[in-house]
Amino acid sequence: MNFLDDFNQMSTFGATPGGGVDRQAATAEDAQTRAWFTQWLQGNGFEVFTDEIGNIFGLYTFTPDAPYVLMGSHLDSQPLAGKYDGAYGVLSAAHAALRVVQNHQAAGTTPAYNVAVVDWFNEEGSRFKPSMMGSAVFTGVLPLEKALATTDRNGVTVAQALDLIGGRGEARRFPIAAYAEIHIEQGKILEELGKTIGVVEGTWCAYKYEILISGEQAHTGSTRMADRRDALLAAALFIVAVRELCDGFEVEQLHTSVAELDVLPNSPVAIAREVQLLADLRAPESSVLHVAFERLTEQIKAIEARTGCTVEIVGKSIWESGPFAGEAIALTERAAEATGHTHHRLVTLAGHDATNMKNIVPTVLVFVPSVDGLSHNEHEYTIDADLLAGLDVFSHIAGELAEGALDGVSG
Amino acid sequence: MNFLDDFNQMSTFGATPGGGVDRQAATAEDAQTRAWFTQWLQGNGFEVFTDEIGNIFGLYTFTPDAPYVLMGSHLDSQPLAGKYDGAYGVLSAAHAALRVVQNHQAAGTTPAYNVAVVDWFNEEGSRFKPSMMGSAVFTGVLPLEKALATTDRNGVTVAQALDLIGGRGEARRFPIAAYAEIHIEQGKILEELGKTIGVVEGTWCAYKYEILISGEQAHTGSTRMADRRDALLAAALFIVAVRELCDGFEVEQLHTSVAELDVLPNSPVAIAREVQLLADLRAPESSVLHVAFERLTEQIKAIEARTGCTVEIVGKSIWESGPFAGEAIALTERAAEATGHTHHRLVTLAGHDATNMKNIVPTVLVFVPSVDGLSHNEHEYTIDADLLAGLDVFSHIAGELAEGALDGVSG
Repeated sequence: MNFLDDFNQMSTFGATPGGGVDRQAATAEDAQTRAWFTQWLQGNGFEVFTDEIGNIFGLYTFTPDAPYVLMGSHLDSQPLAGKYDGAYGVLSAAHAALRVVQNHQAAGTTPAYNVAVVDWFNEEGSRFKPSMMGSAVFTGVLPLEKALATTDRNGVTVAQALDLIGGRGEARRFPIAAYAEIHIEQGKILEELGKTIGVVEGTWCAYKYEILISGEQAHTGSTRMADRRDALLAAALFIVAVRELCDGFEVEQLHTSVAELDVLPNSPVAIAREVQLLADLRAPESSVLHVAFERLTEQIKAIEARTGCTVEIVGKSIWESGPFAGEAIALTERAAEATGHTHHRLVTLAGHDATNMKNIVPTVLVFVPSVDGLSHNEHEYTIDADLLAGLDVFSHIAGELAEGALDGVSG
Repeated sequence: MNFLDDFNQMSTFGATPGGGVDRQAATAEDAQTRAWFTQWLQGNGFEVFTDEIGNIFGLYTFTPDAPYVLMGSHLDSQPLAGKYDGAYGVLSAAHAALRVVQNHQAAGTTPAYNVAVVDWFNEEGSRFKPSMMGSAVFTGVLPLEKALATTDRNGVTVAQALDLIGGRGEARRFPIAAYAEIHIEQGKILEELGKTIGVVEGTWCAYKYEILISGEQAHTGSTRMADRRDALLAAALFIVAVRELCDGFEVEQLHTSVAELDVLPNSPVAIAREVQLLADLRAPESSVLHVAFERLTEQIKAIEARTGCTVEIVGKSIWESGPFAGEAIALTERAAEATGHTHHRLVTLAGHDATNMKNIVPTVLVFVPSVDGLSHNEHEYTIDADLLAGLDVFSHIAGELAEGALDGVSG
């Protein structure tokens, strides 16, 4: 059972010409990957089921009624994305769980806890907002009905999309002792420092705002400039304002972007009556985001005055920052040293399902290097040696967790 | 045969809740309107045929082999648009031609020329670029094969879309003595001056640029701000720069807009790798547009330097300004006076099929007032009295043209 062979085989689903994958949540390509993963789990003795929001679980039960050490990540991707983001973590979790099983079988022993593997549904949030949907429903921060009713750009709901791929089962909870996830860094720090293992000690805050800009549809040629209420001009001023928020803070203390934008009617000769966009603000401290948001609010007033449009916040998703438990950090450092790999503490700027899970159980998050820090791009790359080093460290962590390494640590 | 009854009936096709219409070129709603118009022409004794690019012609032949006075406009609309733009001109042309026929039948006379009516295909250009497609192919400025191969946002070609509605016939040309078109002003001048008939003496230039902006797809959260090449940020800076071009000129000497924009991958958490947009620059004089374009070129360099993206012009459509013939202007003024309506000379900022036709035959373009100047908006409105006044003047012009009023005038 060679990890790299499995990984290469899995990466053929939704493969893109540039070496990446394109398998947004509940598409045919996501379904192919899920089916392959389900078969892998079943073939290796795991009991597999899909829950009410499309999360796939594989359970290996040594001791009925004992809690499980859960490990996983997500198989869905951004459009035209890399093959490592999420998928590396899911396969590593499966291999690590299997190593725990095989080690105990070979030794004739039984660990304190059972082991389980998970593919969280729709971590990416590109087709259905918000991101980290499957783990948010599982941990109770997002109501199931709200998640199932979420629509994509074509009006298809999550419920419909899941049913179309046979991806929706019934709610089933099981006791969980700890959660662990391994992921590519999606940043440059490990590469720059020449370290192999990233020990995640905290997360940045992420505040995401859904913005609705309303203007008036009119003729692009004959309407006097002074009479125009151009929603796309207001959107452009907003995008620039969001970018310029960063100039008011120290370098790398605030990340901002607008990446999704839809125009109505989107005709070359009809001034836009409406623009919908999403603004993404992230910082290590929520205090930075509060100041940034205040400044943005001032900018919005100026944009409204200049363009005659209205700029409304019609939705928001807030993820606050938070530390991982000191015992979880120490466990990863011990595992790296036990397996002979260099390590470095860092924070995650991207959201991960571990961000949701750490609110309910003791949680470990481990990174491996990303070449050039590139991610959400089909040229995303992690060298094979780092993939295997990460798997070694993660398998060591899995074994320790199954022996109760984080017992008594609060989630 | 009541004009307003016909107009109201015609306005039911593609009707929108706000009182407008939505019938983009070769959609089901456009097809319904075309079918109704074809029946109207046939029912009133016109010989109807559709040409190779979907233009519908209705011919009334008094004298075989004599040239025709051609009159018309377009039945297609912008998305969520007004019911007057184009459609008023097509129906006025049909009624005016019928009046010429009935007047001669009643008098037992024969005019110097035959009369013909046209619905030009895809004047709006919202679904298939460029606008004024049908008249551009008819007058030879746009190659047929290029027009037929043009695709909409879903990859459907003009040829496929026309075939789907049975809207494509064979090329057939006939001698044309003159062309006349009546249209709503889509501006405020007539309303502000309290005049009923606009006598169009010239057109603004319109320069349209298709822009491709290329950046690099990356994670919106974890990618360092300094490492980003954000195509949507570059697009926003470009849109603002296009708007600010106007500040360098006298009021109403330059109109600019960006109204169509598409983002890839358009995911909330993946920085845009590509944006396509269309910039629309219009002015009374091409010298203004040359200066504006030079300044925009400088801005493009600054945007490229600031964002690390490339901004390329990948297509352009140029309509130069041009006067209508003095004799055509005088004819409209005489017709307004003969029918007892006030008139005022003005230029058209919007493009019309008459802009193409005036390059090949003597051409008349007449305007009626637009309430608040509003157009490309479902609340576009012209009062009934002005619709009927325009029809009276236009019918008078039709009668004069059929007697050779513009003979000897160069096209």
